[in-house]
Amino acid sequence: MKNRTDIPTLRDVPIGLVAEGRRHEFDSMGSVDVPADRYWGAQTQRSLQHFSIGGDRMPKAVYHAYGYVKKACALVNHAAGRLPAWKTDAIVRAADETISGALDDHYPLFVWQTGSGTQSNMNVNEVVSNRAIQLLGGMLGTQQPVGPNDDVNMGQSSNDTFPTAMHIAAVTAIDDQVVPQLSKLIEIIEQKADGWMDVVKIGRTHLEDAVPLTVGQEWHGWAGQLRDARDAIEASRAGLYQLAVGGTAVGTGLNAPKGFAADVAATIAELTGKPFVTAPNKFAAQGSLDAMVRAHGALRDLAVALMKIANDMRWLASGPRCGFGELLLPSNEPGSSIMPGKVNPTQCEAMVMICIQVMGNDSAVAFAGSQGNFELNAMRPVIINNFLHSARILADGCEKFRTYSVEGTELNRDRIAQYVEGSVMLVTALSPVIGYQNAAHIAEDAIAKDLTLKQAALASGKVDEATFDRIVRPIDMVGSGLAGA
Amino acid sequence: MKNRTDIPTLRDVPIGLVAEGRRHEFDSMGSVDVPADRYWGAQTQRSLQHFSIGGDRMPKAVYHAYGYVKKACALVNHAAGRLPAWKTDAIVRAADETISGALDDHYPLFVWQTGSGTQSNMNVNEVVSNRAIQLLGGMLGTQQPVGPNDDVNMGQSSNDTFPTAMHIAAVTAIDDQVVPQLSKLIEIIEQKADGWMDVVKIGRTHLEDAVPLTVGQEWHGWAGQLRDARDAIEASRAGLYQLAVGGTAVGTGLNAPKGFAADVAATIAELTGKPFVTAPNKFAAQGSLDAMVRAHGALRDLAVALMKIANDMRWLASGPRCGFGELLLPSNEPGSSIMPGKVNPTQCEAMVMICIQVMGNDSAVAFAGSQGNFELNAMRPVIINNFLHSARILADGCEKFRTYSVEGTELNRDRIAQYVEGSVMLVTALSPVIGYQNAAHIAEDAIAKDLTLKQAALASGKVDEATFDRIVRPIDMVGSGLAGA
Amino acid sequence: MKNRTDIPTLRDVPIGLVAEGRRHEFDSMGSVDVPADRYWGAQTQRSLQHFSIGGDRMPKAVYHAYGYVKKACALVNHAAGRLPAWKTDAIVRAADETISGALDDHYPLFVWQTGSGTQSNMNVNEVVSNRAIQLLGGMLGTQQPVGPNDDVNMGQSSNDTFPTAMHIAAVTAIDDQVVPQLSKLIEIIEQKADGWMDVVKIGRTHLEDAVPLTVGQEWHGWAGQLRDARDAIEASRAGLYQLAVGGTAVGTGLNAPKGFAADVAATIAELTGKPFVTAPNKFAAQGSLDAMVRAHGALRDLAVALMKIANDMRWLASGPRCGFGELLLPSNEPGSSIMPGKVNPTQCEAMVMICIQVMGNDSAVAFAGSQGNFELNAMRPVIINNFLHSARILADGCEKFRTYSVEGTELNRDRIAQYVEGSVMLVTALSPVIGYQNAAHIAEDAIAKDLTLKQAALASGKVDEATFDRIVRPIDMVGSGLAGA
Amino acid sequence: MKNRTDIPTLRDVPIGLVAEGRRHEFDSMGSVDVPADRYWGAQTQRSLQHFSIGGDRMPKAVYHAYGYVKKACALVNHAAGRLPAWKTDAIVRAADETISGALDDHYPLFVWQTGSGTQSNMNVNEVVSNRAIQLLGGMLGTQQPVGPNDDVNMGQSSNDTFPTAMHIAAVTAIDDQVVPQLSKLIEIIEQKADGWMDVVKIGRTHLEDAVPLTVGQEWHGWAGQLRDARDAIEASRAGLYQLAVGGTAVGTGLNAPKGFAADVAATIAELTGKPFVTAPNKFAAQGSLDAMVRAHGALRDLAVALMKIANDMRWLASGPRCGFGELLLPSNEPGSSIMPGKVNPTQCEAMVMICIQVMGNDSAVAFAGSQGNFELNAMRPVIINNFLHSARILADGCEKFRTYSVEGTELNRDRIAQYVEGSVMLVTALSPVIGYQNAAHIAEDAIAKDLTLKQAALASGKVDEATFDRIVRPIDMVGSGLAGA
Repeated sequence: MKNRTDIPTLRDVPIGLVAEGRRHEFDSMGSVDVPADRYWGAQTQRSLQHFSIGGDRMPKAVYHAYGYVKKACALVNHAAGRLPAWKTDAIVRAADETISGALDDHYPLFVWQTGSGTQSNMNVNEVVSNRAIQLLGGMLGTQQPVGPNDDVNMGQSSNDTFPTAMHIAAVTAIDDQVVPQLSKLIEIIEQKADGWMDVVKIGRTHLEDAVPLTVGQEWHGWAGQLRDARDAIEASRAGLYQLAVGGTAVGTGLNAPKGFAADVAATIAELTGKPFVTAPNKFAAQGSLDAMVRAHGALRDLAVALMKIANDMRWLASGPRCGFGELLLPSNEPGSSIMPGKVNPTQCEAMVMICIQVMGNDSAVAFAGSQGNFELNAMRPVIINNFLHSARILADGCEKFRTYSVEGTELNRDRIAQYVEGSVMLVTALSPVIGYQNAAHIAEDAIAKDLTLKQAALASGKVDEATFDRIVRPIDMVGSGLAGA
Repeated sequence: MKNRTDIPTLRDVPIGLVAEGRRHEFDSMGSVDVPADRYWGAQTQRSLQHFSIGGDRMPKAVYHAYGYVKKACALVNHAAGRLPAWKTDAIVRAADETISGALDDHYPLFVWQTGSGTQSNMNVNEVVSNRAIQLLGGMLGTQQPVGPNDDVNMGQSSNDTFPTAMHIAAVTAIDDQVVPQLSKLIEIIEQKADGWMDVVKIGRTHLEDAVPLTVGQEWHGWAGQLRDARDAIEASRAGLYQLAVGGTAVGTGLNAPKGFAADVAATIAELTGKPFVTAPNKFAAQGSLDAMVRAHGALRDLAVALMKIANDMRWLASGPRCGFGELLLPSNEPGSSIMPGKVNPTQCEAMVMICIQVMGNDSAVAFAGSQGNFELNAMRPVIINNFLHSARILADGCEKFRTYSVEGTELNRDRIAQYVEGSVMLVTALSPVIGYQNAAHIAEDAIAKDLTLKQAALASGKVDEATFDRIVRPIDMVGSGLAGA
Repeated sequence: MKNRTDIPTLRDVPIGLVAEGRRHEFDSMGSVDVPADRYWGAQTQRSLQHFSIGGDRMPKAVYHAYGYVKKACALVNHAAGRLPAWKTDAIVRAADETISGALDDHYPLFVWQTGSGTQSNMNVNEVVSNRAIQLLGGMLGTQQPVGPNDDVNMGQSSNDTFPTAMHIAAVTAIDDQVVPQLSKLIEIIEQKADGWMDVVKIGRTHLEDAVPLTVGQEWHGWAGQLRDARDAIEASRAGLYQLAVGGTAVGTGLNAPKGFAADVAATIAELTGKPFVTAPNKFAAQGSLDAMVRAHGALRDLAVALMKIANDMRWLASGPRCGFGELLLPSNEPGSSIMPGKVNPTQCEAMVMICIQVMGNDSAVAFAGSQGNFELNAMRPVIINNFLHSARILADGCEKFRTYSVEGTELNRDRIAQYVEGSVMLVTALSPVIGYQNAAHIAEDAIAKDLTLKQAALASGKVDEATFDRIVRPIDMVGSGLAGA
Repeated sequence: MKNRTDIPTLRDVPIGLVAEGRRHEFDSMGSVDVPADRYWGAQTQRSLQHFSIGGDRMPKAVYHAYGYVKKACALVNHAAGRLPAWKTDAIVRAADETISGALDDHYPLFVWQTGSGTQSNMNVNEVVSNRAIQLLGGMLGTQQPVGPNDDVNMGQSSNDTFPTAMHIAAVTAIDDQVVPQLSKLIEIIEQKADGWMDVVKIGRTHLEDAVPLTVGQEWHGWAGQLRDARDAIEASRAGLYQLAVGGTAVGTGLNAPKGFAADVAATIAELTGKPFVTAPNKFAAQGSLDAMVRAHGALRDLAVALMKIANDMRWLASGPRCGFGELLLPSNEPGSSIMPGKVNPTQCEAMVMICIQVMGNDSAVAFAGSQGNFELNAMRPVIINNFLHSARILADGCEKFRTYSVEGTELNRDRIAQYVEGSVMLVTALSPVIGYQNAAHIAEDAIAKDLTLKQAALASGKVDEATFDRIVRPIDMVGSGLAGA
């Protein structure tokens, strides 16, 4: 969370006040009353009236990102001689306050609005305009001397700036939320894996007893999945780094000066410290949201991996007496309102539910991504809202899962050892010596007659005790399976 | 929204206060500090610590529904002689305050928690317990004289009561939100359809010009889809009316007295005025959430229908000069930050995005529904959260869509008439007279040579003018297609 | 499968043959060569050329259903005096051969074609036309004396007949495939459940040890899920019984005589023995495929239930020595190419994969259902193909799952008994006597010190041995949980 | 398609024949009869009996890929001195025949089988074994001198080889099907785009008239989406290049010699000419199918882009008289069975349905990917089947769409020009001169009074004719929007 800078309270605005606590604002359709203590204008107010649907508000992160867009555009417009320094300064300051979150209360709109995000762009234009007017000693609602359309939105359209803000917000969520929390989870899993590299355990395939591996190998398998998922998420930023801003209404850059697109992207890169560039194909960048779809796909793939891992952990911890019982998860809270002393793998369950939600969100994002028409994909709010939702619950979920479950997980070494000793699948090691079919009959015999593997093997006459003892050694069966191991 | 009754402020609790603003609470794992001005106890506090994930809070509607469960159980326990009148009264009053929403601030938990919903059940048990203790003049945090587990949760488990609360909340959302708003939308569509039953317009199949129908018929087509969707939603309540309560921990009803399940269901039915009954198969009712999956499927099917309708409306309104232009949607707000005077079908877009979200939610719900194990489906929070989310945005979306778009929609009758006059597909009416192949050649000729249909028809020599004029009459082509028409 | 009647081979057709094995056919666009030994005409051939995409062919069941449509329309047209008896007889005979599957080789088209299914309708029109011509001694490819459009398609459009055929095919798949196989599966599960009603086993919630139930109760839980799923599938037929035929091109019934819709539906009902009726709202019936979406939703819900059940079975059978090991599934085949003697829950895995596929298909169906425009949903082939795919693999999957897994499943009674004896969750029964907190401490103590529940209980001093023995009796804990039990 | 080499017919096998046309085969469970003219053995036959579910057969491409695995393993085993040259030669020859497709008829198994693909691995082992036996003059069914498990499967498990074959098959489908067809589609779109770079057309956002761009820009937007999609698909191969083979049963490489994994991967790379390497983490590679999920995600993203493009094309071609009518798609076939002369955008519809199917398949793949447990994801067949299905229909769909629709698409230049002339959104160019609000009032006026933009502008008094004519020039409004343009 950015530190909120101290900003002056919205001053009383004598002219413009229409009644206690309200003032006039206007747009091309006419006049609208807004709360006197809010910077927003007519179009924001219209949207509030027409689109108060459910409880889903446009995420604040979109506005923070939009602040960078408005700031960068003002700076570039100024550099191009289109915006005087005093206007630029005021816009930049209002944009900075937007970036920092200091103006969050002035961004009230809902997710379910126009599909281009125009209403949220106008919300920014209006707030920045009024805040700049205020800083310049002007009167709110007059659109003078800094107009929302002509000044704050100069050289811009919602059609190019909203996806630009989406990309900035998405990259930020990846960089600040998902990757750090995922990395910490990987780290702790690998730490634990390294500590358990010589604890031999029974492997399981098809849920059935198989040949052994070590606990460390199993945990490194999980870490490997998460490393691949992280790589893919980081790689998905390449598409997000490409910004549409400068394409204006339909990608042609109408009303933006030559070089505007590249300059604004470069300025945003400098302001954010992230390698943003101008999109090479504005028609693709505005007619589609393919980069967003792909980036959410990478989040989805993380969910796929996390679900497998969280499921493995809760199954391995099942019991305590009537399940697998290999892992001991931390007991964070009583598990049952009726069954005293019950402890449940609640962090794993929360993680599984999060993964399911992310996969549902991914369906929505891909569907929305397919529904563009002509020069605009008008499904932007539903896409960015799902993206930021998925990123947040994945990141927070990883943190809680790590802190309250993975870190404190211990092994039930007795149980683990018993399984290895009891399993008949160690017979596999005999297979190269006595042949698959002979080995199979020994295993079947052991199960059918409830013998140990050794008993059954010796009874078969296919192997002598010395050979058996030399070959059927779990610790020799766990090989490597990891690069460099 | 229920009217919130006036309830006394939580009093200072001298003993139990551990520091300024905190007091001790305990559970089987030990003592926990909670905010002194909240009724919740140790388990709620543990959950807050371990599961502050994202911004998704367990919907308040779940707690309102839970209030009915606790009240009904208390009444039935009392009737069975297991709970004295004075305890029952206190529990009932606290439950009523929960139902009314008066205690909403005491239900802070997140969606991403234990998959059984136990933490929310315990939240209710703790709040009702402490509130009852307070009403009885006792000391908060002592669990005396009304204990969260032994009294408030008497004869219950989360495993049976949480799905019960889910069903009550889901039915309520259907009855109070979805059906009324959907019905109003149907009503206005049918009203408009009736007014336009004789406005002949061109039909379109494959997006291509086809034979005519009337505007009223097209709108009745939409209404017909919505009627079917409403029927299905209402029918889906049948499964939701079956309540698991009484099954306790695993469906067997352990620790609940004989007849408890049926009595509680009957009491809930009486309290809510809805035909709830006890589920005939508690093992299915607790091991699965199939009724919820089915009910959300019905919401999904509504989304499928609404998406088609909203899409039709925005395409028919496309233009104003370079699109279909048959419908004139209300202009609620400026549509573009850069293109002056632009008006967009924003309500339709919001509706389409809502439908996409509901379809994504449906994927999550079905996936979660498939992930039960043994005596419990531990994916409950993600399911109820998605259900109530879908219901709310569909209902609110229908309201805004109706109010700000459908009601004010008008026809561009000139454009509609021009299309009918210009289309060559009226040739279809000639087909039974001159044969399909001859008719096809006339149509192709008209297109190729840019003739009117009549010109091409007469030029073909296959039909004379009198016949043409008698047969090619759009108004005679629109038949019925509606029952009773 | 219908019995294929003996039909005469396609005779050599001297005139019309253009080269070895080819003959001319024509449509409004001109002449096309087709294989001489096939009845299809120009439009089928065009479609084959333009749409040979992947390996997905339009399911034959669609054509069998279409046979009923063509037959019924011919009969009604004849009754209305629009089609002479000799033409009607020939069409009816060709339609009967289509229904029986005898002409399957003449229906080669792909799924990925025009979204209305027109090419498949024309395939039927062409085959029935040519076959009728042949029966009447005419020359193939002349469209005389029975034309594909003017006679076979009389009073019809693809827009109304294709969804009609879809509904017939879907109901047939439900009635002939899904419901019978599902019912047999329910039956065997209930049979086994009844036999095991007194085998007490440990319950599991959150994968963790819980209080006991009986094996029969657990199996009845599964059966209950399947019964509900079957009810929903059967209920979904209500929408499918409504037929669009008679709406012709856009729902208005242009070119169909008055009463045609109702008469054809009644005739189809009579021919199929199923309660088909004319759709009350043709605009909804042709502009949407909502009834199909809903019916597939019911299949999806079955998949949700089956997945839970198949998963339960394979987890309960996991082992043999390092898993739950309560169930013994039949050993149908060696399970591993490398691990001798390994047996896997392969039928369960196949069922789980089937369920996943059906859920993926359901996404496609719902998505397609949302993509209608104006008077037509042009996503029909993808919907019917997924529907029939889902129905088939569910039905076949249920059959194999039942035959090769469920029927032969046995109990490992020793293991089941050990779990019940060892579990500490039986402490729940003590809770009403000594209170939840005391009971919790006993359970925690038993786990921590590796004591039996009884040892820990007596050590706690909260309960004496007589009380313990009286109350902690698993057999007394399993209550009912089933209606009538 | 590989060229099928001429292979000798399966000879009569006197001993082993049990009855007319059948012979004995055996596995560890005993003897099974198989068709005498098939190479497969007991386990394949068992699978055929137990898993004849639906019509979905394991794609032949999986077996072709498996041929490489068996060949490479044999070569590496030989090099390591574990397999004599004469056995190796026979195995390699049989593997080559499998690779070429010559033995396709010997690979009959269904998709719905064991989740590890073991039955298909054994099918390969049995066929290669018997074919090698035959080549060596031995007797089919004796497993001598080349055994399916001990020789053909030497150092392997299904658990490592099946995902290896999946990866090979998936890369091959990408390289041979998807990328070439997609590239050809991109090429033709760009070719057309280049030819139409100066045809100014009206832009559309929210389906509503917007400012102009050129037809070439719009088409380059589509091409840009497809280029990004192709890049992502190609990038997804990185994960697929990593092969699990060498991990054997659980990832540890038990029964495979040191270096086996790397050597086999290198050999497969050499044989296929593709940069396969050994997976660095075998536990991740066998416990998950994440690389497959990611690769299918890339196909899904292509579907998202293609859907937008196909939709744009059919909407732009809608009409001919009552729609947008800018594009003229080729008329490949009559469009309607009832409306003579109707032509529909059938290739676009097929493409849209394909995209919907691929998105449904993607849901299934991701779901399946999440369902792994411990050392195995046992959802492999459903994943590879959906992957190859999606790849095939996308590739074939692109080919047909290109050949029969995109290539022949022409412009309706009159219509395109009329739209540009008539649109009032050109007012946007005036905005920087006269301000947004003034411009908005002009646009609104033009619409309300049905004026041309120029009439309304002059009437407003805000702009003079010379200025208007200088500024409102569509050709000057289309800027660039493309890198390098």
